[in-house]
Amino acid sequence: MEQIAVLGAGSWGTALALVLADNGHQVRLWGHRAEQIEEINQKRTNEKYLPGIQLPEGIVGYADLCQALDHIQTVVLAVPTKAIREVLRKVRDCIHEAITIVSVSKGIEPDTHKRVSEIVEEELGGLLKDVVVLSGPSHAEEVSLRHPTTVTVSAKNLEAAKRIQDLFMNHQYFRVYTNPDLIGVELGGALKNIIALAAGITDGLGYGDNAKAALITRGLAEIARLGCTLGANPLTFAGLTGVGDLIVTCTSVHSRNWRAGHLLGKGKKLDEVLESMGMVVEGVRTTKAAYQLAKKLGVKMPITEVLYEVLFDGKDPKDAVDSLMSRGKTQELDDLMNILLEPKQEK
Amino acid sequence: MEQIAVLGAGSWGTALALVLADNGHQVRLWGHRAEQIEEINQKRTNEKYLPGIQLPEGIVGYADLCQALDHIQTVVLAVPTKAIREVLRKVRDCIHEAITIVSVSKGIEPDTHKRVSEIVEEELGGLLKDVVVLSGPSHAEEVSLRHPTTVTVSAKNLEAAKRIQDLFMNHQYFRVYTNPDLIGVELGGALKNIIALAAGITDGLGYGDNAKAALITRGLAEIARLGCTLGANPLTFAGLTGVGDLIVTCTSVHSRNWRAGHLLGKGKKLDEVLESMGMVVEGVRTTKAAYQLAKKLGVKMPITEVLYEVLFDGKDPKDAVDSLMSRGKTQELDDLMNILLEPKQEK
Repeated sequence: MEQIAVLGAGSWGTALALVLADNGHQVRLWGHRAEQIEEINQKRTNEKYLPGIQLPEGIVGYADLCQALDHIQTVVLAVPTKAIREVLRKVRDCIHEAITIVSVSKGIEPDTHKRVSEIVEEELGGLLKDVVVLSGPSHAEEVSLRHPTTVTVSAKNLEAAKRIQDLFMNHQYFRVYTNPDLIGVELGGALKNIIALAAGITDGLGYGDNAKAALITRGLAEIARLGCTLGANPLTFAGLTGVGDLIVTCTSVHSRNWRAGHLLGKGKKLDEVLESMGMVVEGVRTTKAAYQLAKKLGVKMPITEVLYEVLFDGKDPKDAVDSLMSRGKTQELDDLMNILLEPKQEK
Repeated sequence: MEQIAVLGAGSWGTALALVLADNGHQVRLWGHRAEQIEEINQKRTNEKYLPGIQLPEGIVGYADLCQALDHIQTVVLAVPTKAIREVLRKVRDCIHEAITIVSVSKGIEPDTHKRVSEIVEEELGGLLKDVVVLSGPSHAEEVSLRHPTTVTVSAKNLEAAKRIQDLFMNHQYFRVYTNPDLIGVELGGALKNIIALAAGITDGLGYGDNAKAALITRGLAEIARLGCTLGANPLTFAGLTGVGDLIVTCTSVHSRNWRAGHLLGKGKKLDEVLESMGMVVEGVRTTKAAYQLAKKLGVKMPITEVLYEVLFDGKDPKDAVDSLMSRGKTQELDDLMNILLEPKQEK
């Protein structure tokens, strides 16, 4: 039994707090909105993010960050990627000893092109013991209903990953794998949101499952292509944090990125979409970062490029999808070979 | 422009006849039920299999097999795998010159463990010019609505595959890739139906998208494991006839195999399910064949094994799925490495 702080009381932070509480741990759930924390402590609910779910007694809400972190060694970081640096700077001012961060937010930072674990290392420096990434096909809503779910943890220090595996794993509904490929696990989780946005667009345009399956397959290929160029193991993209997460994010109405794409496909503008969602759509920022990276590294990412034009250059979604479908005849395996083998040969 | 015979007037045969007719070819669509052929020729519909679709003028229905094959060089074989040997024996009695077969049926024969292209070779012998396999994420219903669709063709003779690619490809909605890995393309198409049955069961049991994504990911791994042992290229399973077809078959209500699994998960018995479907569920026979193959070759296929017990030994579907979820802690990448690398080292 351990005391663990979860920073970020959105859907995913709250669902993971619930898993940890189910496993017998004492969980401090920090959020910056006082009325939400009061709801968590008084009513034992978090209606905006996990409607209808009764939170276990093991979760206590905190509106004060330093109080939440007092004497804590393990911190689950579940804030939007855009807010991570700001939150970590405040964390730094609260703690006196090095902590382990479990990063569960998914994205790549535009301009710096850093993964979340790299941002954490940069911001915490000597106050960081280990950073462990948790990722995989896992809608928060389903986790909070205790539906069977599998995720993967990864870290540079595999012993740290195993310790986090033990904290989260249970035999009722939450199954945790380890994978030593930190780069691949983080990139799979981040980049899949790009393909989810694109899949939402094809659905919003009224195209069918055949088109979406083709898009997801080609999407997986371009994710793997960028990932391998950045040093990931290609096999990771065939696993839970690649194919698995891609499927769940692209085919479920629970997915925010899919929902945002769906609205774009229906003809809404990006600003309207983001406003109407009321939650963070990580794929938008990640599309920008991946687009910049692909240009810089000379990696072919046709779906990402076209999506970038839709999001940031006002390209018509229908023209965008049609341009992806209308390329010439291709030899599929050559294409896949290039994806998986070329980046390795380049090194 | 060519004259082409399509044998089998079910959903897929009719949808592919429609693609060929859209591309300007003259198509003879053969079916063994006279009243269905009359409907096709009189009303230009095939209501049972493609409700609401008006068939193009280029399609002519034939109830007489030898008439349909008269002076024909290219034959699309779209009959249930169970009926293939019987139909090919009749074909043999009609033709005098060697023909090219385009195989679009997906399955492995129990007991002999042959792929469809091997059955075609065996039955036609010297009367076979080439056998080309066409496979990929493609619901017939969507193809008949001209929704964007991508498929792959493969053959021992790549020139034959390219000729078939040219027949089917169009720039409106039907995109055709080639892939030289015949074994992988055929096995991907056949084995994905096993995982679709299992995915239907988890949905029927009321488990969520997280569980299904995990099942599909692990399913892809065991398909690849058996496929590589049988000589397929592992990359094929990352492409349209692997991941792509798996996604579309496991996540769409159009899929018969998913629907059959869904009814099993809801508590129906196999006999009732097959009777209520009124169409062939290829995954049932393929599960038996894959189960036998896995035992014979010593390949680990936990999902296939558990599904075999549900289908043929009366195992309770809930116990079956729960047993898949409750294994111990695992290192994901080791597992995947084993899948992709061990079979190759064995050779």
